[in-house]
Amino acid sequence: MPRITSVEVVDVRFPTSLTRDGSDAMNKDGDYSAAYVVLHTDAPGLSGHGFTFTIGRGNDLCVEAARQRAQPLLGRDVDELCGDLGGIYRELQSDSQLRWLGPDKGVIHLALAAVMNAVWDLAARGAGVPLWRLLAEMSPEDLVEAADLRYLSDVLTADQAVDLLARQEGGRKQRIEELEASGYPCYTTSAGWLGYSDAKLRRLCEEAVASGYKHVKLKVGADLDDDIRRCGIARDVLGPDGNLMIDANQVWEVPQAIEWVKALAEFDPLWIEEPTSPDDILGHAAIRKAVAPIGVATGEHGMNRVLFKQMFQAGAIDYCQLDAARLGSVNEVLAVYLLAASFDVPVCPHAGGVGLCELVQHLAIFDYVAVSGSLDRRVTEYVDHLHEHFVDPCVVRAGAYVLPDAPGYSAEMQRESLQTYRFPDGVYWSTVTEPDPLP
Amino acid sequence: MPRITSVEVVDVRFPTSLTRDGSDAMNKDGDYSAAYVVLHTDAPGLSGHGFTFTIGRGNDLCVEAARQRAQPLLGRDVDELCGDLGGIYRELQSDSQLRWLGPDKGVIHLALAAVMNAVWDLAARGAGVPLWRLLAEMSPEDLVEAADLRYLSDVLTADQAVDLLARQEGGRKQRIEELEASGYPCYTTSAGWLGYSDAKLRRLCEEAVASGYKHVKLKVGADLDDDIRRCGIARDVLGPDGNLMIDANQVWEVPQAIEWVKALAEFDPLWIEEPTSPDDILGHAAIRKAVAPIGVATGEHGMNRVLFKQMFQAGAIDYCQLDAARLGSVNEVLAVYLLAASFDVPVCPHAGGVGLCELVQHLAIFDYVAVSGSLDRRVTEYVDHLHEHFVDPCVVRAGAYVLPDAPGYSAEMQRESLQTYRFPDGVYWSTVTEPDPLP
Repeated sequence: MPRITSVEVVDVRFPTSLTRDGSDAMNKDGDYSAAYVVLHTDAPGLSGHGFTFTIGRGNDLCVEAARQRAQPLLGRDVDELCGDLGGIYRELQSDSQLRWLGPDKGVIHLALAAVMNAVWDLAARGAGVPLWRLLAEMSPEDLVEAADLRYLSDVLTADQAVDLLARQEGGRKQRIEELEASGYPCYTTSAGWLGYSDAKLRRLCEEAVASGYKHVKLKVGADLDDDIRRCGIARDVLGPDGNLMIDANQVWEVPQAIEWVKALAEFDPLWIEEPTSPDDILGHAAIRKAVAPIGVATGEHGMNRVLFKQMFQAGAIDYCQLDAARLGSVNEVLAVYLLAASFDVPVCPHAGGVGLCELVQHLAIFDYVAVSGSLDRRVTEYVDHLHEHFVDPCVVRAGAYVLPDAPGYSAEMQRESLQTYRFPDGVYWSTVTEPDPLP
Repeated sequence: MPRITSVEVVDVRFPTSLTRDGSDAMNKDGDYSAAYVVLHTDAPGLSGHGFTFTIGRGNDLCVEAARQRAQPLLGRDVDELCGDLGGIYRELQSDSQLRWLGPDKGVIHLALAAVMNAVWDLAARGAGVPLWRLLAEMSPEDLVEAADLRYLSDVLTADQAVDLLARQEGGRKQRIEELEASGYPCYTTSAGWLGYSDAKLRRLCEEAVASGYKHVKLKVGADLDDDIRRCGIARDVLGPDGNLMIDANQVWEVPQAIEWVKALAEFDPLWIEEPTSPDDILGHAAIRKAVAPIGVATGEHGMNRVLFKQMFQAGAIDYCQLDAARLGSVNEVLAVYLLAASFDVPVCPHAGGVGLCELVQHLAIFDYVAVSGSLDRRVTEYVDHLHEHFVDPCVVRAGAYVLPDAPGYSAEMQRESLQTYRFPDGVYWSTVTEPDPLP
């Protein structure tokens, strides 16, 4: 009977602001960071790894919140925990004093994601399978028991969710074989950061197309003339059949979004991503109506399942970009996938950051295998940085994620990376002095 | 030229869980707490006080977040700060790394509220007037410049907001005189906590009516039979003309809310408060449609102005219960009052907790004087505990808040209270051992 013997939470920050990787109209100088959780056990070689993703300052708040969130796990029997993944989620989530600080949003929810991501990683490692397979081998009833369906029953009851999963159960094996052959399709954002020059943009777009990508995403929203020029470059490289996506990172008011996107319509974007406040369901619905046939995408700042429920109810989005480290781990991600399938909205998860690609590959694969059963309009984000810090980094070939086969959720970071980039006392941060990343 | 010389942030917790004060269907054992901010200056006797309210665990997260949020204030010229209250709000709010943890929600937003509440208190003290008067003497243009209108322009532009305020400008003086004579009407929640016995409930309702209250609020949602019995007692004491409100503190699913409220309709409640998730705009709209003419009220967990904008757009609520320490201070509160007035929805602020009554009296007075110009359907919450810890406690007479006249936002706590209830090392917490409030 292995037990959880200790919880380690590390503040890891990478100095990405130095190179402007990740720069966009809202986030000019992020230092990609993780509040990284390790659940240690007394079973030899068995531990669980999880994290939430932030962009620098405030990562310490998530670290401390994760320590508090994880307290009830200490001393717990690992088999019991992993045998009731819905139960332990609800226990941690329902701390009423911490709930006051949300509910289900902001720092305490990011921390819940970090901790429960580690529990799911532990469960998959314990079972000796990658997370996508752990999920793909669970019964519809067990999946629904693990899913956080609270506040959703007006559109999706537990029974309806079981029925939805049961309809796809027969084809699971065949779809796994398909993906083992072809991988899960992805697109790249690496070409389009706002801080890159036109020449760098063109070169990166050309490299993306040469690598097999059919989609390229550009950051927009700082300056319309720049956006017109940059979209022109990308469309020129992609040709008429490639897919160009644009991403405004929440900078616009609703009327401004409509106007700006119409001014870029000549470049035939597949979607406009985060046109306005991530909380504005009715705003997204208004934008979608006005800019069709250009699609509307959002979700990386989608705080919880109740927000996504309403996005679907209001017909506000064409693409759901849930975030594996912002939603309350697999438990809440399951709920959003179920909702999306019931509304026939494709999920194209947000990735990039630190380790998000490692996580979302499992979710996208599971969605195809067991939930939506469809690849139509589905493509998962891929960004090519910081993978070297992971023990089982994701692998992309010819524009598709190769199915991971190592046990777990691919969330484990290299011990050396933790030692180097631990903030503020790791090898890197204790020696760097310029430029100063602190407030 | 006085300057901000230091920022003090204190974790203050009161052991309210011992007496079940504040108990409801969601929050069974809160320890009412504040992340309390003091902005010290080098001007003799001049400081600014503010806080956000929590119910125990996690208050330390808000304290640390407030420390980080307040860093840019250090060394600032007080007159410059207080002369551009919109500018400093936007500067603190727009820290893009902290923004990632929201945006505008959860711990970082509660912390922004605490810090900016202290800045507004400082501004009013500097001007030698109570906050409500500081606001009531600002021009429409200056009020709109201070208000956080970002993401609202699809329903309320700055020009429209100025027009709205200008329409009420002529009557300000007369309405101040009215309130100086009569006070601002309030209701009491003190009678109806879920943990109280029937006999205590009846006695407290009788005391409330005898004290001049025309409204009484009961917590519901744990057990329907109990609710029917307790509502019967309250209605019996109030008589047919008194106003009974009921409050479920978010425990229901949408269909369950409709069913439960209909089962209590015979007691003729004025409103059902927090029937479901505070994030569920469309859910509130559905409930409101189904339970009319019973009103729907929510807002104490309303995370930001974008949520309230949509509550109004969707026709989801009859009463807006904004919270002075959850919204991003007066700057964002102003925006919600402006939105509410433009949609003709009355604002009945949430209060209780620690010091919320002290804050919201200023807001309600200002609303009547300068924004809505109406008392129709408006009544502000009052709960009779923890006022003894404040230097300028609110005063209620005959069911109405007496207009405060001390300079500031009434937010300053007694130094002795801070020393006694500072967590975990104050006099109280360092000696108490039973029951253990820690996780």
